[in-house]
Amino acid sequence: MSLRDYPSAASRRSFLEKELSVTLSHIGSHTLSEAAVRAKNCENLIGAAQVPVGIAGPLLLNDKSGRRKTYYLPLATTEGALVASVSRGCKAITVSGNAISVVQRVGVTRGPVFKVKDSFEVMKLQGFVKRYFETLKKEAASTSEHLTLTQCNIVPAGPYVFIRFYFDTQDAMGMNMATIATDKMVARIERETHIPCIAVAGNFDIDKKPAWLNAIGMRGWIVRSEVLLSADVVKRVLKTTPEKFYDVWLAKCMVGSALSGSMGFNAQFANVIAALFIATGQDAAHVVEGSVGMTIVEVRKKEVYVAVHLPSLMVGTVGGGTELATQQEALQLMGVAGTGKVAEFASVVGGAVLAGEISLLASLAEGSLAHAHEILARGNPKSEIRSSK
Amino acid sequence: MSLRDYPSAASRRSFLEKELSVTLSHIGSHTLSEAAVRAKNCENLIGAAQVPVGIAGPLLLNDKSGRRKTYYLPLATTEGALVASVSRGCKAITVSGNAISVVQRVGVTRGPVFKVKDSFEVMKLQGFVKRYFETLKKEAASTSEHLTLTQCNIVPAGPYVFIRFYFDTQDAMGMNMATIATDKMVARIERETHIPCIAVAGNFDIDKKPAWLNAIGMRGWIVRSEVLLSADVVKRVLKTTPEKFYDVWLAKCMVGSALSGSMGFNAQFANVIAALFIATGQDAAHVVEGSVGMTIVEVRKKEVYVAVHLPSLMVGTVGGGTELATQQEALQLMGVAGTGKVAEFASVVGGAVLAGEISLLASLAEGSLAHAHEILARGNPKSEIRSSK
Amino acid sequence: MSLRDYPSAASRRSFLEKELSVTLSHIGSHTLSEAAVRAKNCENLIGAAQVPVGIAGPLLLNDKSGRRKTYYLPLATTEGALVASVSRGCKAITVSGNAISVVQRVGVTRGPVFKVKDSFEVMKLQGFVKRYFETLKKEAASTSEHLTLTQCNIVPAGPYVFIRFYFDTQDAMGMNMATIATDKMVARIERETHIPCIAVAGNFDIDKKPAWLNAIGMRGWIVRSEVLLSADVVKRVLKTTPEKFYDVWLAKCMVGSALSGSMGFNAQFANVIAALFIATGQDAAHVVEGSVGMTIVEVRKKEVYVAVHLPSLMVGTVGGGTELATQQEALQLMGVAGTGKVAEFASVVGGAVLAGEISLLASLAEGSLAHAHEILARGNPKSEIRSSK
Amino acid sequence: MSLRDYPSAASRRSFLEKELSVTLSHIGSHTLSEAAVRAKNCENLIGAAQVPVGIAGPLLLNDKSGRRKTYYLPLATTEGALVASVSRGCKAITVSGNAISVVQRVGVTRGPVFKVKDSFEVMKLQGFVKRYFETLKKEAASTSEHLTLTQCNIVPAGPYVFIRFYFDTQDAMGMNMATIATDKMVARIERETHIPCIAVAGNFDIDKKPAWLNAIGMRGWIVRSEVLLSADVVKRVLKTTPEKFYDVWLAKCMVGSALSGSMGFNAQFANVIAALFIATGQDAAHVVEGSVGMTIVEVRKKEVYVAVHLPSLMVGTVGGGTELATQQEALQLMGVAGTGKVAEFASVVGGAVLAGEISLLASLAEGSLAHAHEILARGNPKSEIRSSK
Repeated sequence: MSLRDYPSAASRRSFLEKELSVTLSHIGSHTLSEAAVRAKNCENLIGAAQVPVGIAGPLLLNDKSGRRKTYYLPLATTEGALVASVSRGCKAITVSGNAISVVQRVGVTRGPVFKVKDSFEVMKLQGFVKRYFETLKKEAASTSEHLTLTQCNIVPAGPYVFIRFYFDTQDAMGMNMATIATDKMVARIERETHIPCIAVAGNFDIDKKPAWLNAIGMRGWIVRSEVLLSADVVKRVLKTTPEKFYDVWLAKCMVGSALSGSMGFNAQFANVIAALFIATGQDAAHVVEGSVGMTIVEVRKKEVYVAVHLPSLMVGTVGGGTELATQQEALQLMGVAGTGKVAEFASVVGGAVLAGEISLLASLAEGSLAHAHEILARGNPKSEIRSSK
Repeated sequence: MSLRDYPSAASRRSFLEKELSVTLSHIGSHTLSEAAVRAKNCENLIGAAQVPVGIAGPLLLNDKSGRRKTYYLPLATTEGALVASVSRGCKAITVSGNAISVVQRVGVTRGPVFKVKDSFEVMKLQGFVKRYFETLKKEAASTSEHLTLTQCNIVPAGPYVFIRFYFDTQDAMGMNMATIATDKMVARIERETHIPCIAVAGNFDIDKKPAWLNAIGMRGWIVRSEVLLSADVVKRVLKTTPEKFYDVWLAKCMVGSALSGSMGFNAQFANVIAALFIATGQDAAHVVEGSVGMTIVEVRKKEVYVAVHLPSLMVGTVGGGTELATQQEALQLMGVAGTGKVAEFASVVGGAVLAGEISLLASLAEGSLAHAHEILARGNPKSEIRSSK
Repeated sequence: MSLRDYPSAASRRSFLEKELSVTLSHIGSHTLSEAAVRAKNCENLIGAAQVPVGIAGPLLLNDKSGRRKTYYLPLATTEGALVASVSRGCKAITVSGNAISVVQRVGVTRGPVFKVKDSFEVMKLQGFVKRYFETLKKEAASTSEHLTLTQCNIVPAGPYVFIRFYFDTQDAMGMNMATIATDKMVARIERETHIPCIAVAGNFDIDKKPAWLNAIGMRGWIVRSEVLLSADVVKRVLKTTPEKFYDVWLAKCMVGSALSGSMGFNAQFANVIAALFIATGQDAAHVVEGSVGMTIVEVRKKEVYVAVHLPSLMVGTVGGGTELATQQEALQLMGVAGTGKVAEFASVVGGAVLAGEISLLASLAEGSLAHAHEILARGNPKSEIRSSK
Repeated sequence: MSLRDYPSAASRRSFLEKELSVTLSHIGSHTLSEAAVRAKNCENLIGAAQVPVGIAGPLLLNDKSGRRKTYYLPLATTEGALVASVSRGCKAITVSGNAISVVQRVGVTRGPVFKVKDSFEVMKLQGFVKRYFETLKKEAASTSEHLTLTQCNIVPAGPYVFIRFYFDTQDAMGMNMATIATDKMVARIERETHIPCIAVAGNFDIDKKPAWLNAIGMRGWIVRSEVLLSADVVKRVLKTTPEKFYDVWLAKCMVGSALSGSMGFNAQFANVIAALFIATGQDAAHVVEGSVGMTIVEVRKKEVYVAVHLPSLMVGTVGGGTELATQQEALQLMGVAGTGKVAEFASVVGGAVLAGEISLLASLAEGSLAHAHEILARGNPKSEIRSSK
């Protein structure tokens, strides 16, 4: 009898507990709706992993229209010091009062790969896609009223032709919708050109692998968040000097990353994004895209300007894991649940990432990073700074 | 009154619920020990995110000594079809019966950056670290009986000297221990050479950013898992042909990734690693390192050989989030909780990743990927394949 | 008295010969027009380096309109076996008779970087460039009648805004024209927006450094050359089998390059491009851009399909070094000197690169590479294959 | 009758002149020894390309033992303004008087790829190479008394095992010697392990393709050159300010390169290296390796510190093209011809590259780059700055 044949999470747990001589009572303690989860989020359910959620903030952000708003950040993490670290960054930002987050939708991408015989078929395929772009757009739109094909790039290489389709998927992260729409367009392309598609997803998307294509061609949302930290904030909240803060940034985020052959010119984007993504029901594998990007610091007299550039943030406020109970609460806590909120959510992620950068760079500058670890190693909850980046 | 001043998760929730007019009752429903979490995992706790856990398997793996063992895989995910996808891959592997996972510890790395005045100081610093390596080893060992400094690389660039220390941290992932040990060594180096350290973590580690240094210099564990799929398995379990399976792999994992400027020459490493990491209390931001690596396929007559190469898998079976209740249960379910198990755990992650690759490549080959999405879009739990890669 | 003060190459040589006790008689033996060289190509002239030119070919290529043409390839190189290697590739291509080269102009790029104070200035600058693109186009056109601004990308990051301008520069490689045009546009942008430009060339061009931006965003010319090698050619000319040839390609160009963190998924693009560039007066530093790209092989029954994809080939048939006497002869020998020939020249470079790939992969497959070296080490000119890739 | 059948360069030229209705009289005007060239450097010789050589310098460098020496730099280039640009950098360096170049041999690499059946064969091959490293060293040494195997890395991936052998090849660049030695070792490995080698050069070398493996694992020579420019030099020679110079560097070499996905965090390494390589008979395709590396600038009160880091410089002073007449003269002019000079030559290349960086960054800072182009466009030889980077 296969796991799949057990009718419920409870029966699967019983089977496993018996078979493996383990207890799964904590995994079994949850408030999930099994039916909903089974239908949308997870097959062969046995329960839930409980990931601790700490709260950072308040974080005061401006948008480009000058609206100010304060956010609390739910961070799901098991790594001590992260919440404290982000909290300190939020304090530095909020006291400074001038942080701004600006976002731009690029859209989710899906990239099928076709197989041609020669250059003439390449030209045929390129020609078809360009000429019938509006037709393809209609095919795509027919699969969902929440999806619009916005643009595409075509890159042939030998017997392969890769197409990168970009979509506006409204409030959803949209990867699944994009796949369905692409499948529809692919069928049309195959029918009209008789050129076969090898795979509807040919890594020219490129999904969940670190890739310069996403950094350069962008993906999901571009987010830019910046703040000008006052001299006082640098001294009292961050306990360092503008010069030390700058030196750490240059040595670490720029020179260190460059020597490492990195796509991430930052301090800890991934830590903050992973914690926010797990808390709010995003696809955790998109931490990969989120880890790419740059932090830039500038000393302006006695003040310190800090900016983060996120070229490929994949987020949604509907669909995926966002509708699960704890995840929905986390989004509501931030005021970004449901429709019409995804741009704002992206902007808050940018602000949170900015807070994480400020705090970690400051910790390194004051030399307190390892000290925080020692405190944690003794189990003391008062540590102020981040243990790992 | 700051969030930090509230004495408990409940009081923080009350504050937030009132302040923000939200309810956090699901986040508040958990079985965490607040004291333990506060001491080790998360500041400003307000509760837990519940991430659905599905079970895949059984997965039959051999180790290099010829021992066979069967595993069930707890996958914490909100992305429908992932568990089903990995399950199918497990079936293909288990029926074939010959999969093997081989692991090698490289060790966690920490990379401080020093600031020199000129080339003479570079030589002085290089000389000191080389001559006094055993001394540094003792300094490192003095910070923890579970940690050993194993090697280091020194790379100067202009006024900077980057050192990459590698550690054996036994069963722990070890990032925090490595930081404490590095801090101690740095103090000694500064004392003896009078060359200042700018940052104990200078991105030459490089932690949680995609980087070729980790792919080439390796980090954490190197894992290699491989299987020879019989013709029958390819046909009946994977519902495709060796040729189609191979074509998808070559077009997607190799050509598509190469054209995208990717560090990940694979189909969906990140999906499987994210789900296993969240379930078992790993640091979720290390999905970034996990997403790097290569899948290789070869047709051998009518059989299909598939191998995965993971150069930088960061895992532990003690410390971090592994001791939380649901995470501990997940590790126990796999038989890899506690000391002496980390190599085995790494090998199972490799096997799970192999299963994910096989299943997704097969889905793309048979053209069923988008179909799975459509089913999911209607909320049908029977879908067999993965929605997103 | 400084070198610059000597009035002629001869007087500079005399000075150096005396000062350094050397003889420069070979460097002094040349047929250059000093006045022309001084005005356009080289300051402080002392003479010429003589680089041996060997001839490969004939190479039979088709263009996309079905026109067939045969070329001889002048290769300036000091590395024994390269000419022989390319010659063999040419033979394989010419005997097969079906090779085709297709080119597409992307255009030379120049990328200034501006410095802004905040996100509002970013939006101001983006807005200006988008709204006044036609104005900028006119500014650019006013600097040369051979130059047209075709498109631009704008990427802000923190206090910086990078713009990548693309130009059509007709038959010239065009880097210098592009710089002058960019300088003019920059002046206009600064005047209108009061946002200062830090550098007219801010490495977002990106010129003469290996970069994914050029592979993904393309630069100069995209060239695609392909051939279907008959079974007989593979056997008699290349002395290998389709399977061995394929195996070498997959292991070397794909897996080996991927593991090396390379941007070049090929065997020896750089060798062929360097030799052609030096012979024809191209900018030799553009070998960097030329080394990026991919070779793809496919076994089709008993035939072997080979294609090369060059995303960023920088070439010109007027200007730069193309008008020097030997370089002009080399271009004439290929039938691509002067105006209206640059696309054809790009296509021939692609064909030559294809020949180099075929020959080296075959040498590796038959195991004769090292043997060629041994012969060369003994000074035997009959070696058939390439010594270094 | 094939080109190969013509007995001399003259007869080949006659054939081509007649066949193609061209004249090749300039290509035919040379002082090469045909027999020597044919034996070592170039098959199917038809003559020589004359590349203008300008002289830059004097350049005053210190080595790590405090020895001071002045060099003139022969630059073979067709790109106007390069020689003038490097000359200005040399002046800034020489007047400052404190530049130092430090080099370290890493050695040429050759990387064969083997094909295994499974993980057991991987272990067998790894074990053999490690246990019999001294044996392999002897095999390598038996092929040349000028070559020593120094180390190797082994990286398995699926059915492939890549080995990267490093060699000390004394004064030669050594690529060919390395291939012959590798071929001998490969034969031994195949004989003993019965594991076949697919290709003696499997792109894990990695030769003449831009690759992080060479930047991280290094190749050839590591060169570090640095200088502290006095305030007066910055003002009078470079005509800019420390702040402007620094701003250009940060925006261009660091941020611009990072956003471009580049391996070159520099201004114009490739220009200087290409010109020196062609003049001195290096392998011009190794400009690819030379283009990788970093420039770092620091303002120290009113002085400016500039350093260049070249991780993979491939040079030799014997063999290859170094023994051709004009190339030999160029090496002699620098005082680095023949044996015992290669380290010094590498150090001078570093100094020249440093000069190029200083001058171009200064030109960009003062805004004169485009102006130089305009002057060049009118054919005026007095331009001081570099036209293209």
